[in-house]
This record gives sequence, C-alpha cells and structure tokens, in this order.
Amino acid sequence: MSDTSPKRLGKIPSIRRLPRYLKCLEEYDRQGREIISSTEFSKDLKWLPIVVKKDLQIVSPPTKKRTGYDVKGTIKAIERFLAWENPMPTILIGVGHFGMALLRYGKFKGVDFLASFDSDPAKEGLSVGGVSVLPMSGLEGFVRTHAVEIAVLTTPGDCAQAITDDLVRWGVKAIWNFTSKRLSVPDGVFVQREDLSAGLAELTAKIKHIQGVEETSL
Amino acid sequence: MSDTSPKRLGKIPSIRRLPRYLKCLEEYDRQGREIISSTEFSKDLKWLPIVVKKDLQIVSPPTKKRTGYDVKGTIKAIERFLAWENPMPTILIGVGHFGMALLRYGKFKGVDFLASFDSDPAKEGLSVGGVSVLPMSGLEGFVRTHAVEIAVLTTPGDCAQAITDDLVRWGVKAIWNFTSKRLSVPDGVFVQREDLSAGLAELTAKIKHIQGVEETSL
Repeated sequence: MSDTSPKRLGKIPSIRRLPRYLKCLEEYDRQGREIISSTEFSKDLKWLPIVVKKDLQIVSPPTKKRTGYDVKGTIKAIERFLAWENPMPTILIGVGHFGMALLRYGKFKGVDFLASFDSDPAKEGLSVGGVSVLPMSGLEGFVRTHAVEIAVLTTPGDCAQAITDDLVRWGVKAIWNFTSKRLSVPDGVFVQREDLSAGLAELTAKIKHIQGVEETSL
Repeated sequence: MSDTSPKRLGKIPSIRRLPRYLKCLEEYDRQGREIISSTEFSKDLKWLPIVVKKDLQIVSPPTKKRTGYDVKGTIKAIERFLAWENPMPTILIGVGHFGMALLRYGKFKGVDFLASFDSDPAKEGLSVGGVSVLPMSGLEGFVRTHAVEIAVLTTPGDCAQAITDDLVRWGVKAIWNFTSKRLSVPDGVFVQREDLSAGLAELTAKIKHIQGVEETSL
C-alpha cells in the first residue's frame, strides 16, 4: 500500500507530464533549435516556470548556464528516465473498439506492439494499425517466445484477472489495465489502471467549483 | 496559467480518486451496509487511511463518531461535490473506434449522452450504445436547443480546435478532449485533456525505477 512514490521515482504528477515536455522538445528539434530558454519553454507548455523546473529535475536534464535547456539532450534524458529509448515488447489483448483505437493510434513511444489477441475467431488474421490479431490459444507461446514485457488489457472486466494471472505466470512484468476491474498482481509486477471516470470527475468538479481557470494537469 | 488548484476545489489527485470511493460505497450500499469503518474502507480501497481521510475531507462526508462513514450520506456528498447528482446534457463528436468505445461503455455518471455526431454520412442514423449518430450539419441546432453543457471530443486532432471554437460560441461549457491536440478556450470554459501517454509514462517509469510497489494512483 503506497500513497507516495519512492524518492528515486519522483513525483507521479511530474512523471505524467513528461510526455508533453517530450512532444514540445521534439517540435523544437524539428525546427532545428538547439537550446530553449526556460521562459519560452514554460510559455509554450502553458505551465509555470517553477513547475517546469521541478518536473525536469527528476530527469537531470543538461542545461546551458543562463541560456536554457539543451533540446536534444533533454529529449534523451526524458527518454532514458521513462525507459522509452528501447521500446518494450508489448501485446494487446481484447481487440474491441477501444483496443482497435489504441492499436490504430500507433504513436505510443516506449512500447513495441508485436501482436494483439482476441477470442473472436472472426477477428483472427486481421491487421489493425499494422498489428496482427492472433487467437487466444497462441497467447502463452507468444508471450514466452517473445519475452513480452507489457500487456495492454482491453478485454471485458470479467476475464481480466484470469488473463492477468496467466500473463504474470508466463513472465509479463507490467499490465496497462483499461478494463473496469482492479487487478491483483504479485510484488514486482506493475499495473497501471486507466480509469476515465477520474478525468470526468476532474472536469465536472471544475465546472461546479471554479470559474475561469485554464486547462491544468495535462 | 495554474499549477495548483484553488482552495475551494481541493487537490486534483483527491478529486480523481473520488469515483473509486463512489464505486466502493455503492457496493456497500448494495450489500445493505449503512456504516463503513474507515479502517475497512481503506483496506478495501487499498489506500492508506490518511489518504482516504484527506481525500474525503473535500466532500465533507457525514461520519458517525467512532464508527465510520455513513454509506448513503457519503455517496450523496461525493455526487454533490462532483455535480453528478443531475447528469449534464452531453454530446460526443467523432464516432470512430474510440468514440464508439466510450458510447458503448455507457456507465459514466454525471453525463447524459443526448446524441453523437460524425462527418461520415455512412454513420448517420446508427445507434451506438443507445445514442444516435447525427450529421455534423445538425450540430449547432442541437447544441443550442438542448443547452448542451459538455462535449466529448474524439475527432482527429486537425479539426479539434475549429469544432471547439464553434461549440464554445454555441454555449458549451466544457470539453472532454481525447484528441491529440491541446485546445485553447476562453475563460470560463473548461477543457479536460486525456493523454494516454501520461499513464504509459507512469507505467514504464515504475518498471524502470522501482520494484515491488503496489498499484498506486487509481
């Protein structure tokens, strides 16, 4: 049970903002810019300079004294911190509408979608966003052969725990959980649950309680 | 530009956890339980008692001295805080895979999906999760007639800002933004952006930096 993150991980909200820093820096890089001042960076991100400074401290970005952040170096530092330099072998299980949307999006850094799996025989052999749909009977062999590290779960909730138990037994280290269920996993396995209700709560609470505040967390 | 929330809103992470409290309390209610001790509640949630206590302070839940939280009363207090007592008139724009997944999910509290809109004539007249798909030409009339408050945006990124500008002009108060673009809106309009990369960053950072930590934020 943990309410705060271990020191070496840094603050979760900062980590969640890192992809946006990355996106913005990559845009500077495409424009051929080598250094970005912290003032301009924070203005483009629409976050306060102090937030930007504190967030980036966790990745120890290379800075040039008095001139700002080194664009390429900071990109590398963020990618290194997030382990996004070498995309991890990843599969997706449950090729419904949501699973298809994720596969088609295709722009996630850090993950390398090797295959997807679905129990519906009609989907077998399809290619979604360039990723093949395979039958569930092939799951164990595939996970073991390819040393799959991350499984994205977009199945109905009622089979989520059973699939997770299997995946963990076969060596999967992390579950990105989009199902309606919370999952139990042994120590050393990570679950990231995405609960869209959380975002909706944030939105409706803002509508009710505040006026005239800009887009905040992401 | 804001880095922290105004006092009356409370902390964003606490607000994002409220839907889980609600779900858990509704389960107690179904079981006929009237009071839940804070110890048991925190155990079921797998969050530390101090986290539960602090989170719930923002909704001022009714408690029974030394016995715990009043189940029905706390449900009401959370729903009131989130403005989920009376679902807001809501539409969804962009009925692709992701939009369909959201409409079919159908369990979002606080929003009342009145209709969805898509520019593809082939989708016109479909019903997805019980919600009709209407043509974009009918958007303005619909928004004005039904006093739509929330628009869920699941369109491609390149048209997101233009649609948002229209929606705001027609009176929409809040955008739940699932597109790849950040949106600019005037004061008094709220945007909640969902960036799935944020969750992925959290997951891969945990894999890289910590071992044996349980599921945290949601």
